[in-house]
Amino acid sequence: MKYVKPSAFRNVTWKDGFWTRFDELVRRNVIPYQYRALNDLVEDAEPSHSIENFRIAAGESDGEFDGRVFQDSDTAKWLEAVGYSLMKHPDPDLEAKADEIIRIIAKAQLPDGYLDSYFTIKEPDKKWTNLRDWHEMYCAGHMMEAAVAYYEATGKRVLLDTMLRMAKHIYDRFGPVEEGKIPGYPGHEEIELALVKMYGLTGEKWLLDLAAFFVKERGKSPNFFEEEAKKRGDTGESRRRWGLDLSYWQAHAPVTEQKTMEGHSVRALYFLSGVADVARLTEDEVLKDACRTLFDDCVNRRMYVTGGVGSTHVGEAFSFDYDLPNDTIYAETCASIALVFAAQRMLQMEPLGWYADAMERALYNTCIAGMDLEGRRFFYVNPLEVLPEASKKDPGKRHVLPVRPRWFGCACCPPNLARLLASLGNYFYGVRGRDVYAYLYDSSVSELETENGPVTLDVTTRYPLDGQIAFRLSKGDYDLNLRIPSWSRDCWCVTKNGVKAEAEVKDGFAKVCGPFEDGDTVVLTLDLSVQRVYASLRVTEDIGKVCLQKGPIVYCLEEADNGKNLQRIYLPREAEISAEFRPELLEGVEVLKTEALELADDGSDVLYRRDCGPSFRKRELQFIPYYAWANRGEGEMTVYVREKI
Amino acid sequence: MKYVKPSAFRNVTWKDGFWTRFDELVRRNVIPYQYRALNDLVEDAEPSHSIENFRIAAGESDGEFDGRVFQDSDTAKWLEAVGYSLMKHPDPDLEAKADEIIRIIAKAQLPDGYLDSYFTIKEPDKKWTNLRDWHEMYCAGHMMEAAVAYYEATGKRVLLDTMLRMAKHIYDRFGPVEEGKIPGYPGHEEIELALVKMYGLTGEKWLLDLAAFFVKERGKSPNFFEEEAKKRGDTGESRRRWGLDLSYWQAHAPVTEQKTMEGHSVRALYFLSGVADVARLTEDEVLKDACRTLFDDCVNRRMYVTGGVGSTHVGEAFSFDYDLPNDTIYAETCASIALVFAAQRMLQMEPLGWYADAMERALYNTCIAGMDLEGRRFFYVNPLEVLPEASKKDPGKRHVLPVRPRWFGCACCPPNLARLLASLGNYFYGVRGRDVYAYLYDSSVSELETENGPVTLDVTTRYPLDGQIAFRLSKGDYDLNLRIPSWSRDCWCVTKNGVKAEAEVKDGFAKVCGPFEDGDTVVLTLDLSVQRVYASLRVTEDIGKVCLQKGPIVYCLEEADNGKNLQRIYLPREAEISAEFRPELLEGVEVLKTEALELADDGSDVLYRRDCGPSFRKRELQFIPYYAWANRGEGEMTVYVREKI
Repeated sequence: MKYVKPSAFRNVTWKDGFWTRFDELVRRNVIPYQYRALNDLVEDAEPSHSIENFRIAAGESDGEFDGRVFQDSDTAKWLEAVGYSLMKHPDPDLEAKADEIIRIIAKAQLPDGYLDSYFTIKEPDKKWTNLRDWHEMYCAGHMMEAAVAYYEATGKRVLLDTMLRMAKHIYDRFGPVEEGKIPGYPGHEEIELALVKMYGLTGEKWLLDLAAFFVKERGKSPNFFEEEAKKRGDTGESRRRWGLDLSYWQAHAPVTEQKTMEGHSVRALYFLSGVADVARLTEDEVLKDACRTLFDDCVNRRMYVTGGVGSTHVGEAFSFDYDLPNDTIYAETCASIALVFAAQRMLQMEPLGWYADAMERALYNTCIAGMDLEGRRFFYVNPLEVLPEASKKDPGKRHVLPVRPRWFGCACCPPNLARLLASLGNYFYGVRGRDVYAYLYDSSVSELETENGPVTLDVTTRYPLDGQIAFRLSKGDYDLNLRIPSWSRDCWCVTKNGVKAEAEVKDGFAKVCGPFEDGDTVVLTLDLSVQRVYASLRVTEDIGKVCLQKGPIVYCLEEADNGKNLQRIYLPREAEISAEFRPELLEGVEVLKTEALELADDGSDVLYRRDCGPSFRKRELQFIPYYAWANRGEGEMTVYVREKI
Repeated sequence: MKYVKPSAFRNVTWKDGFWTRFDELVRRNVIPYQYRALNDLVEDAEPSHSIENFRIAAGESDGEFDGRVFQDSDTAKWLEAVGYSLMKHPDPDLEAKADEIIRIIAKAQLPDGYLDSYFTIKEPDKKWTNLRDWHEMYCAGHMMEAAVAYYEATGKRVLLDTMLRMAKHIYDRFGPVEEGKIPGYPGHEEIELALVKMYGLTGEKWLLDLAAFFVKERGKSPNFFEEEAKKRGDTGESRRRWGLDLSYWQAHAPVTEQKTMEGHSVRALYFLSGVADVARLTEDEVLKDACRTLFDDCVNRRMYVTGGVGSTHVGEAFSFDYDLPNDTIYAETCASIALVFAAQRMLQMEPLGWYADAMERALYNTCIAGMDLEGRRFFYVNPLEVLPEASKKDPGKRHVLPVRPRWFGCACCPPNLARLLASLGNYFYGVRGRDVYAYLYDSSVSELETENGPVTLDVTTRYPLDGQIAFRLSKGDYDLNLRIPSWSRDCWCVTKNGVKAEAEVKDGFAKVCGPFEDGDTVVLTLDLSVQRVYASLRVTEDIGKVCLQKGPIVYCLEEADNGKNLQRIYLPREAEISAEFRPELLEGVEVLKTEALELADDGSDVLYRRDCGPSFRKRELQFIPYYAWANRGEGEMTVYVREKI
């Protein structure tokens, strides 16, 4: 086995910038807290039982399996986050805890390579009988990602070898009919991108072949899930009752025939990530086109301004183009994390700035809104509008919680966020030949490897508080490509050593050509003024409304700052908006202040009034970054505000 | 058995007014069409099997029960409508068909009086084991109402005697524990008001006692439904999964402790009707207060401007005060019919004008919107806002159909509407002592009985096209109380023989005192100008919006008249609105025309635009009466329009 390519992110070191706090939070709070959660030690949270399940499967504990059929994946995601954390922050105690869990996991593996605590404990006869609903490959995929991260962090091979055996078990069983295999693929995609990671680490081509098979076989006719269901004697009644069809699993058509993002949004975006990986590595232009079509639909017709995706809680799914309700929304934290994953793969496929625009939007808004400021409470659903009474009493909004709960029985989001944030450096840069691409910006020191040798980028910035981003460069013959975010397209500049640089924008990047000398300084200045953002009029829910954005940060109004009845507010189109950094508020946020109007009536109890409509009166407003909402108790929140034209 | 009191409505004869067309429609189209539907003769409709079930239960046909557990009630409601129709329009062929069905029903009754085709055919061992979910008493109640109507129409006692036996069967089994009976009550209320009708016809006090028992026992602790479920070994899991608790059945507390309308809206309003009947007949002031509290909550905090009720499709239920979403609404046709029933009982309890206001609102808008102009297609759900694409693709709006279907497997609404419209005269007047109350207005001749003798009211009016309503009176010593609708409170007048009459308004009625001479003419003039109606700002969904109403008629915009993108429209507050009667349109409707604005952008595909919000351009509008929507194919519709202030 050879070590093909290191991950880039271990070479990104945060200085004191925007992401430092999140990095620390993950290390100091989230990982330890989730360790306790996975071990059922958090008193007021739903129990996980995830690690205990492995113990039982390994024969080291008695008892019954508890939790969902995919409970293994919570431990996997936590281990992956631990791997990333250990790369930058050695911690013998944490490593010992992880080693012990890995020892149990390896012991829970069956002699034929099979690993899944649910089926090992509870239904050993039902292994591989329902790929559609039972998450064996999904759990395996997450554990493979953990294995790669943990190996890269520690050099320890126990989990990697375990998961290579599981991969081989799957490879031997599933694949082309012509090879005498079962033409199945996972009901919840994830293993595709995990196999590609293991391929990247090992160079074992059969891993890539298996990923490519899963990607290309999906949705072909006759449909595997339907054939499999027939064999089980499953009439599909329960699925139909829930209104789910094959598109829920992205299995309604081969990916090359899919034109829109459909079904369960996390599945759809993990799938897209895997397809983009396979397309890139196999240089399959048809697959690449399919990726472009789907990513375009996702980002340009089905994504909230916060980078949330998934418009309906039924199936936690995409619905249709421009259907973006703010209050019955799903916008699962995991779906925005998956959007970051997919955008990263699209960038690896081809460095187009708008992929990074979407990544940034999801990252700075919905992803980090998924967690409270202390890293101990988590949202599954990330609404753009909340009325707490409606969340309690309207069954169509019960999924929209106004306050983050501590943990979920179905705890996909918290550890998913942990693994993203612990590896965030991975998403900042790309290298192609002599071109270095900067996708995201924060104060950091990074070491990258170009075809002409190593490069060090020392970035100093207060971004996203202001728009000046200074790169101190190392000597070398390379070009620096700086992303110009779409929100700054009309107003930006680049200087090199204090002199305005002629930088052409192509595909969303301004190219500053090298070679560079040690200490050369390139300064990018972006437009960090407050912007009014309007959704397309095709988004019925947002007609007549506006939201505020400053740099990548989308703002919202909260009851804690503004009192109740946020939906009565009208922001005059000409209202001046001022920004003010408040270090004491919400771990330090920049607030936006303005004077607006609100509709007011005489306060009578009449339900329907005639001929005497409400009138306007003044109201002061303070907006906060969306990601920091719901940290001050229960209250109303809204991202969009009516506009007075 | 003595005949205590005739129904009033057989003494109301329509002249050529607003309701004539509906009366004809029911007689010529709805009743014949529903006969065919109940006999499974409508080709492109879901089968009913309702009459066939009775045939099987009577031993006159082989086969299995088909349909819902409450399928009997569809036949019952149809028979009731036939009864009402025959009273005014003798039809030997129709009567023969009804007689034949009644013969079968009577034959399906078991020797102990039990009647319910589902349990007789399918689960004879499960009779009376699940009052909560299985509709034995509900079906019995509907058949009792049919029996009363059919007896009053024809003098034939077969169905009445059958249902008196069934009532006795129930009376012997259910009642106070002290009497050795089971303290149960129906899961779907209806029998309460039916028992009161049979009591009214027969004077048999045990019928009233049974109704009173059901009304007062409901919701007491220990809860009967919970005790009954325990006996069945039902853990309540499925109910919990659907989010239903005891309030779904109005069984969460005794009615005297209920302060808000809760649960399934048809159940809740049938219940309220029964409670009001019992309160009036037993002169129970505590029960009367309970009725006032609940009716007030229903009408003043939970009713749509169209008279629709039921804000959520989950449980077809009320949700919470001021929660009135326009697009995820339920507003079942049956619920508005039930609101008419409840309002009628409230008026019988005490003649307060606002009860009739609610009745009128429901009747002229949601009730008749439930049916197409030909009486052959029916809505279950009556939205205030429809976007056809959303109805098809958003699972949260799948219940909101943009076009009326032909018939439903669960066909509660069509025959319910038939029985309401066939007996509509019943809802127009009330008499208390020397006081005659006019609740509703239409061209008609009516004979009423006051304590001082008979009265004939000959009404001539184009209402609701204009506001002049002329009463030509018969000689007698009585007072005429004319309802001044809330929408005309500020502008109305009454003349007597051409001279302005001093009429004081009390409780929503203008009293014109008698005695009167033959040919005296009292003319009431109401304000039929177009009015802008604003929902309370507490109704979040309607903030910044307005709707139009003219007299009792609520208006809407349809795509057929106005093109797409109705949600982009802004009606300027000062816009002039003109009314125009168009005899050729939708069987003759008055349309409202105005020039408004719409938000427009440059039509680009950009999902999120910065700093260049949409601007206004002019757009012509034509509003039609809400009741006539969805008669011209599939398209957008909205009742509320954004207002430009």
